Amino acid sequence: MLKEAIYHRPKNNFAYAYDEKTVHIMMKSKKQDLDRVDLLYGDPYIWKDGAWQYKTKEMKLSGSDEWFDYWFAAVEPEFRRLRYGFECSGQAESIIYTERGFYAELPKDIGSFFAFPFLHAVDAFKAPEWVKETVWYQIFPERFADGDPHLNRKDTKKWGTSPDKTSFFGGDFQGILNRLDHLQELGINGIYFTPVFQAETNHKYDTTNYLAVDPQFGNKELLKNLIRECHRREIKVMLDAVFNHSGYCFAPFQDVLKNGEKSKYKDWFHIHRFPLQEGDTIHYDAFGFEKAMPKLNTENPEVRNYLLQTAVYWIKEFDIDAWRLDVANEVSHDFWREFRRAVKSVKPDVYILGEVWHDSMAWLQGDQFDAVMNYRLADTVVDFFAKGKATANQFKNEVSHLLHSYPLSVNEAAFNLLDSHDTPRILTVADEDKESLKLTFLFHLSFIGTPCIYYGDEIGMTGESDPDCRKCMIWGESEQDRDLFHFVQKLIELRKKIPAFCNQGDFAFIDLHPAAVSYTRKNETETLLFIINPTEQTVEVNLPDHFKGMANLWTGDSLESSAALIQKKGFLILYKQK
Amino acid sequence: MLKEAIYHRPKNNFAYAYDEKTVHIMMKSKKQDLDRVDLLYGDPYIWKDGAWQYKTKEMKLSGSDEWFDYWFAAVEPEFRRLRYGFECSGQAESIIYTERGFYAELPKDIGSFFAFPFLHAVDAFKAPEWVKETVWYQIFPERFADGDPHLNRKDTKKWGTSPDKTSFFGGDFQGILNRLDHLQELGINGIYFTPVFQAETNHKYDTTNYLAVDPQFGNKELLKNLIRECHRREIKVMLDAVFNHSGYCFAPFQDVLKNGEKSKYKDWFHIHRFPLQEGDTIHYDAFGFEKAMPKLNTENPEVRNYLLQTAVYWIKEFDIDAWRLDVANEVSHDFWREFRRAVKSVKPDVYILGEVWHDSMAWLQGDQFDAVMNYRLADTVVDFFAKGKATANQFKNEVSHLLHSYPLSVNEAAFNLLDSHDTPRILTVADEDKESLKLTFLFHLSFIGTPCIYYGDEIGMTGESDPDCRKCMIWGESEQDRDLFHFVQKLIELRKKIPAFCNQGDFAFIDLHPAAVSYTRKNETETLLFIINPTEQTVEVNLPDHFKGMANLWTGDSLESSAALIQKKGFLILYKQK
Repeated sequence: MLKEAIYHRPKNNFAYAYDEKTVHIMMKSKKQDLDRVDLLYGDPYIWKDGAWQYKTKEMKLSGSDEWFDYWFAAVEPEFRRLRYGFECSGQAESIIYTERGFYAELPKDIGSFFAFPFLHAVDAFKAPEWVKETVWYQIFPERFADGDPHLNRKDTKKWGTSPDKTSFFGGDFQGILNRLDHLQELGINGIYFTPVFQAETNHKYDTTNYLAVDPQFGNKELLKNLIRECHRREIKVMLDAVFNHSGYCFAPFQDVLKNGEKSKYKDWFHIHRFPLQEGDTIHYDAFGFEKAMPKLNTENPEVRNYLLQTAVYWIKEFDIDAWRLDVANEVSHDFWREFRRAVKSVKPDVYILGEVWHDSMAWLQGDQFDAVMNYRLADTVVDFFAKGKATANQFKNEVSHLLHSYPLSVNEAAFNLLDSHDTPRILTVADEDKESLKLTFLFHLSFIGTPCIYYGDEIGMTGESDPDCRKCMIWGESEQDRDLFHFVQKLIELRKKIPAFCNQGDFAFIDLHPAAVSYTRKNETETLLFIINPTEQTVEVNLPDHFKGMANLWTGDSLESSAALIQKKGFLILYKQK
Repeated sequence: MLKEAIYHRPKNNFAYAYDEKTVHIMMKSKKQDLDRVDLLYGDPYIWKDGAWQYKTKEMKLSGSDEWFDYWFAAVEPEFRRLRYGFECSGQAESIIYTERGFYAELPKDIGSFFAFPFLHAVDAFKAPEWVKETVWYQIFPERFADGDPHLNRKDTKKWGTSPDKTSFFGGDFQGILNRLDHLQELGINGIYFTPVFQAETNHKYDTTNYLAVDPQFGNKELLKNLIRECHRREIKVMLDAVFNHSGYCFAPFQDVLKNGEKSKYKDWFHIHRFPLQEGDTIHYDAFGFEKAMPKLNTENPEVRNYLLQTAVYWIKEFDIDAWRLDVANEVSHDFWREFRRAVKSVKPDVYILGEVWHDSMAWLQGDQFDAVMNYRLADTVVDFFAKGKATANQFKNEVSHLLHSYPLSVNEAAFNLLDSHDTPRILTVADEDKESLKLTFLFHLSFIGTPCIYYGDEIGMTGESDPDCRKCMIWGESEQDRDLFHFVQKLIELRKKIPAFCNQGDFAFIDLHPAAVSYTRKNETETLLFIINPTEQTVEVNLPDHFKGMANLWTGDSLESSAALIQKKGFLILYKQK
């Protein structure tokens, strides 16, 4: 037994309150090293004749990655208090693993055990319920639809021509309003708008005025209408807040540029020295080294107050449902804790999405964000389905690794994307192979978490990195891939119709064929089996007995045989209800 | 190379802001598996010709426990942003370890690396500066000194007779005031008082009135005098708050007992159903199953407000310096975050000590406590020095394990104890062996963190578990072990005189002799070498060259020889200054 591989430490993904009565416990061990793990657990205050009264529960092998097996158990401690240890069995050996190390026999001292001292619902990670049933659609407003040419700048380029980094095309709120039918037809029920506040660039990530909408997009009344219309169609609205840095033209920064040391806003930024600029060198912190994006001093109470009031303003006045937070990882945890308190106090079920590209456990403890942009999953999915860079086994290891890096509650509310305004488009990455793209969408829309579709991906838009991934939306039906649209539409429909397809089903990989990716989504009454064949050959899969006689969800036929042939670049979805 | 043993995950003890410009990074690997680890690190935004510009720093093997080696580096990222990975070398192999796994070559994508996205001072764990130089002394007020017999209850027992669980002996504030000379002579500079608020029991952990002092101890004026007098003598004062539960006689609980469902305080507690009691069964949450200690509902805003106002009141009105928080692990993190904000807003350098007996990383992230009661260290020290249950090697492994479980900043402010009102006394555990006790004190007072002495331990008091460990303080000099007193006094003096002895020196074990415990405390100008021989035989230790010619700190002699004989149950402390 490889003791060095055995690991557990309470909180984070290893021990957490899943809901107000359930604690989830996880332990990891070297892959295929243990045959069985039992959780030994009990209330620390229940003793009898000098012996701690604990119970035993066999843990489930919930998944494996390249190096480790993950063992899982859910328990409901009667008095909400929990002490626990693990009995690890394998290779004709059995040892007890506790906070104080390994023992041959169960330690008598309760102090040796791991502690989850009290289950407080208030400490549990809890994303809004509605988000679990949301399919997001990301809109880059400048490029979605031009509904009001009167708002267009003089240098507006012709819709659909090739963008460069500084082009404007005239996309606006009216355009989006005019095109909501397209989104409703697709079936999405949440829109993530990249920034709509007054700014200089086309992407608007350089805010000039946090309390004004950008006049190129329309006015506040129109934005209100747009949000109202979204809500009427049961579509949630997420706006994008850039609190890490302001734009160059943000009045306080302009004041510092003008008045230097004497500016009353000089502590709003991180100024190293004056003058602020000497040639190409800037003497203030910025996003990266971007002169036009001076970093805000979010520890300054005035700045903090200003930003929090901003966050609250758009919720209260415009009834937005969610905030996406740009460069969220470079702002302090302390600020985000206060942000959460502020926004949840005016709208308890507002959704908070942080832009964090790397491991995000520190932001997903319940006191800060409800989700982060799951780029790591995107990379994994893209590498496998679109680029063909990974084997099915590597893909499963990676996805399992990621799932076991976070609590289940975090995974259920994860913001999963394939691409965005910051990456090449998925179809381009897939070398324009539509069949691969469909498989990608199938996985994307049947996975745990909430998926997001980047505008235009559903109709087959292509694009390399920025600016090419920010091309104008194609509205001519003949230029749209309607077959792809209907494919995505059907997946979204299934997601809405079948709870296990969405977020009310456990996700687990199963091994049916080495070249295919197979997984189940299950709840108490439903079972779904997905088999995806990303290869160029037909694969034959033998179905275990308990999958026989299920219906083919895509065609509606029932499957009588115990073997299934999955065409190259094809898939099978089987479904049954109890 | 054992990949399954290699572990790093940002935040907690593995990557943290040590101060406003320094990030500490740690990685672990299988013991004696790697020869060298290099940290590869840089600013994520500094690129040249398409390549990330990173630096390399060799990591220090900072210690080992039973299973792992710990590798450490401190870096000062110029722009406060950090991406990093590890190059692990050993067994003629060299691999790159990053957030996304192991690589033979350095990954080109910055997204593969671990991230410490921005060093925010506000997120750094930061205990008050003064606490690092504090030697605490724990007083159980009912048993320390009876200064005003008029306050004594009728059933007060004769001072010094044997206590049972419900005895009263008349200890009070005046008694403590009268005896401050003893403490000042000993040299301590912080007193931790177990609860002094109105309560029914002798231990006062069942608060009746959070805003009143217990009349057996005196009145508020007298407590103010006591605190003032402590401050005049440069002694900090820590009071003990019991916020997990109230006492049975707490007016709101009495109101619920009386008015049941109709009580306006019924949501102040966790009531399962009425009536609250049926025979021996209680229908409310309690501390353990202790009927007299109903658990407070700290999520109820009224309760929260009441307790936070209480916490602030004693700071504002009585100028206390610290709060010790009883059963702190069973109250929510959310409550403690608000508690920290409340108390630090009225006294920024107040010290917050939580009672947590187990792994406490979740409370020591900078947003909750400054320290916890370090019972795990106590057990380790007691097992080795007092009980002789562990080998020197096991002891070093355990201490190293503990040190590497927390950030250095946490270790520097740790509240280290040997015993308390909740454990047997150290001398009794040591089988009344005074020589072992001295070695225990030597380690205790030369270790990193802030030590606490339980009243009477310094003069050789004995005691089994409660109630025996709560015996009356012995004041007759002839009954006190004055030799022991002077020994402890001398250690405290050295701690105060020599910065490296206290908390301005790194702590590291060194291997000089298998049966002895040897360690250094070092800073830029001072080196201390401690060798403790806990055995019944003299041990001979060969000193490495760089320790030669140092002075024997205890005797003042200089050590000329390259070998030292350490008597049985003896020690050697060598010292040099640059």
